[in-house]
Amino acid sequence: MPTEAHDLRHHGDAEVRDDGSALVDLAVNVRADTPPAWLRERIAGSLGSLAAYPDGRAARAAVAARHGLPTERVLLTAGAAEAFVLLARALKVRRPVVVHPQFTEPEAALRDAGHTVDRVLLRAEDGFRLDPAAVPEDADLVVIGNPTNPTSVLHPAAAVAELARPGRTLVVDEAFMDAVPGEREALAGRTDVPGLVVLRSLTKTWGLAGLRIGYVLAAPETVADLERAQPLWPVSTPALAAAEACVSSRALAEAAHAAHRIAADRAHLVAGLAEFARAGLRVVEPAEGPFVLVRLPGAAAVRRRLRDLGYAVRRGDTFPGLDEEWLRLAVRDRATVNGFLRALERAANPAAG
Amino acid sequence: MPTEAHDLRHHGDAEVRDDGSALVDLAVNVRADTPPAWLRERIAGSLGSLAAYPDGRAARAAVAARHGLPTERVLLTAGAAEAFVLLARALKVRRPVVVHPQFTEPEAALRDAGHTVDRVLLRAEDGFRLDPAAVPEDADLVVIGNPTNPTSVLHPAAAVAELARPGRTLVVDEAFMDAVPGEREALAGRTDVPGLVVLRSLTKTWGLAGLRIGYVLAAPETVADLERAQPLWPVSTPALAAAEACVSSRALAEAAHAAHRIAADRAHLVAGLAEFARAGLRVVEPAEGPFVLVRLPGAAAVRRRLRDLGYAVRRGDTFPGLDEEWLRLAVRDRATVNGFLRALERAANPAAG
Repeated sequence: MPTEAHDLRHHGDAEVRDDGSALVDLAVNVRADTPPAWLRERIAGSLGSLAAYPDGRAARAAVAARHGLPTERVLLTAGAAEAFVLLARALKVRRPVVVHPQFTEPEAALRDAGHTVDRVLLRAEDGFRLDPAAVPEDADLVVIGNPTNPTSVLHPAAAVAELARPGRTLVVDEAFMDAVPGEREALAGRTDVPGLVVLRSLTKTWGLAGLRIGYVLAAPETVADLERAQPLWPVSTPALAAAEACVSSRALAEAAHAAHRIAADRAHLVAGLAEFARAGLRVVEPAEGPFVLVRLPGAAAVRRRLRDLGYAVRRGDTFPGLDEEWLRLAVRDRATVNGFLRALERAANPAAG
Repeated sequence: MPTEAHDLRHHGDAEVRDDGSALVDLAVNVRADTPPAWLRERIAGSLGSLAAYPDGRAARAAVAARHGLPTERVLLTAGAAEAFVLLARALKVRRPVVVHPQFTEPEAALRDAGHTVDRVLLRAEDGFRLDPAAVPEDADLVVIGNPTNPTSVLHPAAAVAELARPGRTLVVDEAFMDAVPGEREALAGRTDVPGLVVLRSLTKTWGLAGLRIGYVLAAPETVADLERAQPLWPVSTPALAAAEACVSSRALAEAAHAAHRIAADRAHLVAGLAEFARAGLRVVEPAEGPFVLVRLPGAAAVRRRLRDLGYAVRRGDTFPGLDEEWLRLAVRDRATVNGFLRALERAANPAAG
């Protein structure tokens, strides 16, 4: 297949900026009404010490404690995007494999670092479920998302762990795991899976996309390798303050509450979308992330009409394994979803409008 | 010479943190009482839009306008530290040369990227002045600071520009240039010097060390090469807000005012240090940066005694070309300097204490 056919550097933010500021945003996977006021205040409180160089030790210790790990298994990064670049550059890798469809940045970072990247394409017919046997035995780096962006599939932790091998680095992007009630298929905190590297983000649940903060959980040697490839002072003081705040017990309780609300809102969205089965719309189920992936004949035209009606949704065709019939929809509150469903009714049936 | 003898990763912040929080800080080259309240407010104002991914276009345009350059000659980075890593990784370089003594991070970044780095050592006997003929003709990357940290020497712009060659990248770290009245030897904004790359920082004058923001000015092709090596969304939203604010005409006027005040405070410090000539203390002059470099017999012991007396100064021996007889002193206001000079009197003459 033409591996260059997808724009790996297209992201949802491009669909809402510029003329998109007036659009209702179902394109970007960041929780609405975030960051909450208490978190903004914590971040604002760090601005008084900006003159000092960042000191990441307290935040690193807090993240380690949150996952029950020693600090040497934790690396704070300037967002997951930096983590992908570090992994691509710092690890000795001969045959990297990325399990698609998924977030495109890991593959883009690997290619930018000069690697040839092989793809395992999970299939719509299989509900995009993971088949561990599909991953080549000699892959020494495997990247997978769980729950997966954009499919919203939550793979069983055991199936993901089954991908581990001696001599292989297994990168599991858990950027959306804290939106899953109980984080029930998480590998974060596990130390019994050889070569495991878990990536976490604070961007989505906490609305900190603008702050650039995330972290890596891995074996101490891997953390040390990645750390050596980082610039000095890689994470800003406000981002460190946010990281510390977001792993506090208050924050964890709030995230758990939000995960249950997202599940309810997602059920409402999926129920509403079922009404469009007559138009050929299909939802990938079970959806477990804060977004759903849908297939719809004429999706590209529907997306353009939705835009005219004031709603931004994420095109699916930039994800390897998908084409222009796919759209990704962020889960929003019931009122927003109801408005969206009305707009979709018009966009999917333009003649009736 | 043993090129591994210096700890290139030692920085002044290590001298004031931990037990150093109670010390009067003459070790870190960040202007005191910064960031100013108006700038903190501008940064705090950006916290309301953290949920969106950073959009660097306005800040980039503002920085370009400040230097009279088109935007494609500007790259915003997560501090100068990121710029050094990008230069080390993204440019095709065979023979990099760093002019020392200077900030150690460029050499550390080049080595981390696998390069063998040659050093040109400017000499104390020459007042650490640049001799362009000392740079090997076949060097295809030359890194120099102006004004230079830690020597505080301001090289003539013409002497620096003389280092340019076809096929050579000339990196001039102007992190402290905005502390020089009139920025009179700046190369920033010049487009007639082949291969010129100018680095600027907003950290020192504006007290934004914790925010990670700086920028690169270079030919469009070089900017494009560096940009491809950056992670996605490399600079946070608060840092972008700060960059835009720090190149406003209000900020430039305030920086110019501060540069004159620093010059006066430095003259006061240097005059006070002249009293220690009898103890063998020598100041590298003319000092043109917001810090001065001094040579003093027994400097290591004096530094320890100063610490006991409540004053942190920067050791010089981690800079290639210097040894344990050197100290770097940040310029502070007259009252702080007076207190420091009294402590130095006791530290330099412990028997009299």
